Amino acid sequence: MKLRETRIALVGLGLMGGSLAHGLRGRSAGLIGVDSDPAAVECARSLRLVDRATTDLASALADCDLAILAVPVRAILSLLQRLGRDLPLPPYVLDVGSTKVAVVQAMQTLPEGADPIGGHPLCGKETSGLEAALPGLFQGSTFVLTPLERTSPAARSLAEELVHTMGAQPLVMDAARHDRLVALTSHLPYLMAAGLVEAAHQAASEEPELWSLAASGFRDTSRLAASDVSMMLDILLTNRDNVRAALGRVRAALERMEELLAAGDEQALHLVLKRLREVRASRPGGS
Amino acid sequence: MKLRETRIALVGLGLMGGSLAHGLRGRSAGLIGVDSDPAAVECARSLRLVDRATTDLASALADCDLAILAVPVRAILSLLQRLGRDLPLPPYVLDVGSTKVAVVQAMQTLPEGADPIGGHPLCGKETSGLEAALPGLFQGSTFVLTPLERTSPAARSLAEELVHTMGAQPLVMDAARHDRLVALTSHLPYLMAAGLVEAAHQAASEEPELWSLAASGFRDTSRLAASDVSMMLDILLTNRDNVRAALGRVRAALERMEELLAAGDEQALHLVLKRLREVRASRPGGS
Repeated sequence: MKLRETRIALVGLGLMGGSLAHGLRGRSAGLIGVDSDPAAVECARSLRLVDRATTDLASALADCDLAILAVPVRAILSLLQRLGRDLPLPPYVLDVGSTKVAVVQAMQTLPEGADPIGGHPLCGKETSGLEAALPGLFQGSTFVLTPLERTSPAARSLAEELVHTMGAQPLVMDAARHDRLVALTSHLPYLMAAGLVEAAHQAASEEPELWSLAASGFRDTSRLAASDVSMMLDILLTNRDNVRAALGRVRAALERMEELLAAGDEQALHLVLKRLREVRASRPGGS
Repeated sequence: MKLRETRIALVGLGLMGGSLAHGLRGRSAGLIGVDSDPAAVECARSLRLVDRATTDLASALADCDLAILAVPVRAILSLLQRLGRDLPLPPYVLDVGSTKVAVVQAMQTLPEGADPIGGHPLCGKETSGLEAALPGLFQGSTFVLTPLERTSPAARSLAEELVHTMGAQPLVMDAARHDRLVALTSHLPYLMAAGLVEAAHQAASEEPELWSLAASGFRDTSRLAASDVSMMLDILLTNRDNVRAALGRVRAALERMEELLAAGDEQALHLVLKRLREVRASRPGGS
């Protein structure tokens, strides 16, 4: 099935759903936007993001070839439990949730007749909601796809076409590996940003001048602490073991640096920090 | 003494020195740029950043009313030990080093006849060197001044005029408090960024796909790890106790979050993360 022949139900009109709508409208056979929040539906209508916007999930699912689930992870899990039971079962199902093991497990239990595939576009902002949606949000980013054994070549090919249409690069990956790696690249940075804000906030309760001394370095390092909490909580709780392992890794790294600092071992500290600077600088899109 | 009557020797033509030169040339009675690196001197000449550029520190210091020390902290300390001894003693001395207690202590030991004041402009980039210098680097930022008991009102007023000329806001503060607070707002974020890169780098040695999954969140949270290592090492080693206390604060914050995550205490974790989100979002220049 080609994207231009596919009628899409986009479930969730937030940052992800809105940004997907920017790319998919006019490139598919019809785009229905669904959100339980009438204000988001109204907003999608007035921005002409979708061909039709509704709060009626069942009718949208009944009337599509592909459902894209663009809600927080635990809302995706609960939707997947309802498809083909108290909600219509669309032929193709793609989600864009930030953790994949729990989603793929839930997809595994879908009734026959559904052709599901997991997805995770690696783009985002610490802001959320439809107002924050951007036409170019996916441009140049990686879009992980986690097919199941039951995923057909047709579903995979449709998902890949969709990814390319959004201007992103598909990366097919095992769900477990995905979750292990994003714990380090995404969930850990969030918790570190929150931990930094906590440390500064505590100190500022005694010395409020602290905030006058927070410049761009603090701002960037703490940016993710402003992420949507419900979304992040879903992520953390569906990827708990990997997040804890990632926290363990960073704790060990910080302890090692602290030891060298305490010992005044300048040479060793220089070596460590220089190596990390090179690692950081050599990453694509480094700065 | 007014800035327009002041002959300035700018010692150090790096990111800070170069950015100061952009703002001070033509607004003082003469601006001599000094650097031990002939390439930096040549570059400053060709960019016409200063009225005169030289590697001859002694002649520049002999020929100025105000010396601005814009080199890494420990180079500032060693310069301060030489002023009025094997180097000429300028009437006014201002430094722009990133830690202040050690600098102010060294200023205290300057021979009579010098009128020193500590300074720290809270702007910067993870890039360094004259090529990275920007005319607007100081614009809108806070510029901490740490006067000594021996600092005259004239020196303080000259420093404040200079800060305003650079488009920054002076903030007069005790050196000890400055160092305690920047440990949290600047030195801790640097170490956290380095720790994050270390954790990811270790994991990537087994699963190199990790880097494909690093998006803007990882990039921002780890940005400071690309800072100039020699400069940061000077900072860490001249602010060791405060940095260790800051690390202790963040460790406690992360441990608390990990406990809540391990216990699956969703409600408490939500409260903590929501509070930190509000703290982060309420800071000026928040995002």
